[in-house]
Amino acid sequence: MRTPRQSVEITEVVEWRDGEVRRVVDYLAAEEPLEIRVSSSREPGVSLSVTMRTPGHDLELAAGFLLTEGIVDTAEQIVGIRAVTDEATGKSNVVEVEIAGSDYDAETMRRSFFAASSCGICGKASIEAVRRRGLRAPNPGFRVSPQILCSLSEKLRGDQAVFEKTGGLHAAGLFTAQGESLVIREDVGRHNAVDKAIGTQFLAGRALPPDTILVVSGRASFELTQKAAAAGVAMLVSVGAPSSLAVDLAAKSAITLIGFTRESGFNVYTKPERVAGAAAADPPDAPSES
Amino acid sequence: MRTPRQSVEITEVVEWRDGEVRRVVDYLAAEEPLEIRVSSSREPGVSLSVTMRTPGHDLELAAGFLLTEGIVDTAEQIVGIRAVTDEATGKSNVVEVEIAGSDYDAETMRRSFFAASSCGICGKASIEAVRRRGLRAPNPGFRVSPQILCSLSEKLRGDQAVFEKTGGLHAAGLFTAQGESLVIREDVGRHNAVDKAIGTQFLAGRALPPDTILVVSGRASFELTQKAAAAGVAMLVSVGAPSSLAVDLAAKSAITLIGFTRESGFNVYTKPERVAGAAAADPPDAPSES
Repeated sequence: MRTPRQSVEITEVVEWRDGEVRRVVDYLAAEEPLEIRVSSSREPGVSLSVTMRTPGHDLELAAGFLLTEGIVDTAEQIVGIRAVTDEATGKSNVVEVEIAGSDYDAETMRRSFFAASSCGICGKASIEAVRRRGLRAPNPGFRVSPQILCSLSEKLRGDQAVFEKTGGLHAAGLFTAQGESLVIREDVGRHNAVDKAIGTQFLAGRALPPDTILVVSGRASFELTQKAAAAGVAMLVSVGAPSSLAVDLAAKSAITLIGFTRESGFNVYTKPERVAGAAAADPPDAPSES
Repeated sequence: MRTPRQSVEITEVVEWRDGEVRRVVDYLAAEEPLEIRVSSSREPGVSLSVTMRTPGHDLELAAGFLLTEGIVDTAEQIVGIRAVTDEATGKSNVVEVEIAGSDYDAETMRRSFFAASSCGICGKASIEAVRRRGLRAPNPGFRVSPQILCSLSEKLRGDQAVFEKTGGLHAAGLFTAQGESLVIREDVGRHNAVDKAIGTQFLAGRALPPDTILVVSGRASFELTQKAAAAGVAMLVSVGAPSSLAVDLAAKSAITLIGFTRESGFNVYTKPERVAGAAAADPPDAPSES
């Protein structure tokens, strides 16, 4: 098991503040590459992906990545998962995953990986490619109160142990519709934080409740929305702004996409009927500069 | 030529603010895939990379990408570059680049791409892989005043036209040691903003002055530091926090890495001698919580 300590490194810094200069010892968010290797009964482990991540929760990151990229659908398909430590450096920057069945072929997988991303001659094709993968249906009765939504960014921030020290990490958390935190994870990479949070539940065999909310500390991009859709998350709440393609994908995947979430309010971009009271809003008049 | 308009899309939003709910029309940062195809006398165009980017300055993005990923070294190697418009959608989401010479082979390039990233069994190997590519030597006499450094984040922000509307874009800018802006670019992707800024100068045949400063609106990761190193930038200034591997790579590449840049101050992580007055700082005492 990794300790939180490995997520932080110490360095010496020259700090310049209001004209005063001094040398101090400061904390850095740790960043190291992680290679994910996948094997099946058909062939031994082949490298599928390398991501720059903050060490810690690596098995969860690998499992979450395989789920949100559509390589596995159920936890039972993962028959073995382990971290590999390099003897020379003592570092564990490789995770090996064994997948059930013989229909996995790493070369095909890598090709389809490349094809899936390069299908995108236009954003519409990117969205179609995601939809073809078959998304889980969200709970139609799912409702969240505005007061709970306003509390989520603070709850996410409050549990960011490493961010407090380094200021350098993204966070992603899964919450219930009642605002209870299921899991919160941090990483230098936005996608990794999401994969770690989703992978923690997935690897433990805990199905996501149909009213799960994914909260991210940064912006909502197409790729984060894609990961939410693949995991069957019905509501994505971002502290930052969403992109145009994130909004398009959320609309077509029946995901409620919320941005600019603060204690004082938020914007609902798609499927507002899941926010209690939002349907009563007046129609728009003029463009807003907000 | 693209207009700034294509960087922004309009959407209808349900806005919840201080208990009031209303429908407004709001702006979104545009996000679309861009495929980069490379051809040489040896073979026709083959897809090298697909990135999710904000449309605009696409040729600059492609040229910058090829430079900062080490595929070309000089602008003369790019003998042709053009955007391809899809007739059905009217969208230009493909850039074709023709590279001089016959030693380019897309399959080899894709393999080495994968190998370069997956070399990273440890961060040290990642750094060695970058260093083996041969970095440009920064100007040893390069000095910047703290007052100019304190002004850079505001200068970057002040020129972010699309961010002002959408709140959804990263920015990257190239500045001289006197604080003059050479070019500022925005994108939904951090790496794309850097590639657009560097690619603008590169494609125009303007060599970067040896005292160029790269300023980024977000955090300083390994990959951004790698791009700075490949472009021969001697100073990387980030508004956010640096990661551990970014600091390691900057130290080994003789790049001055500065983080948490504000009007009131900044932290210098590596090569502080390029900041006037920083060398006079006292040695550190206890760890700081800053």
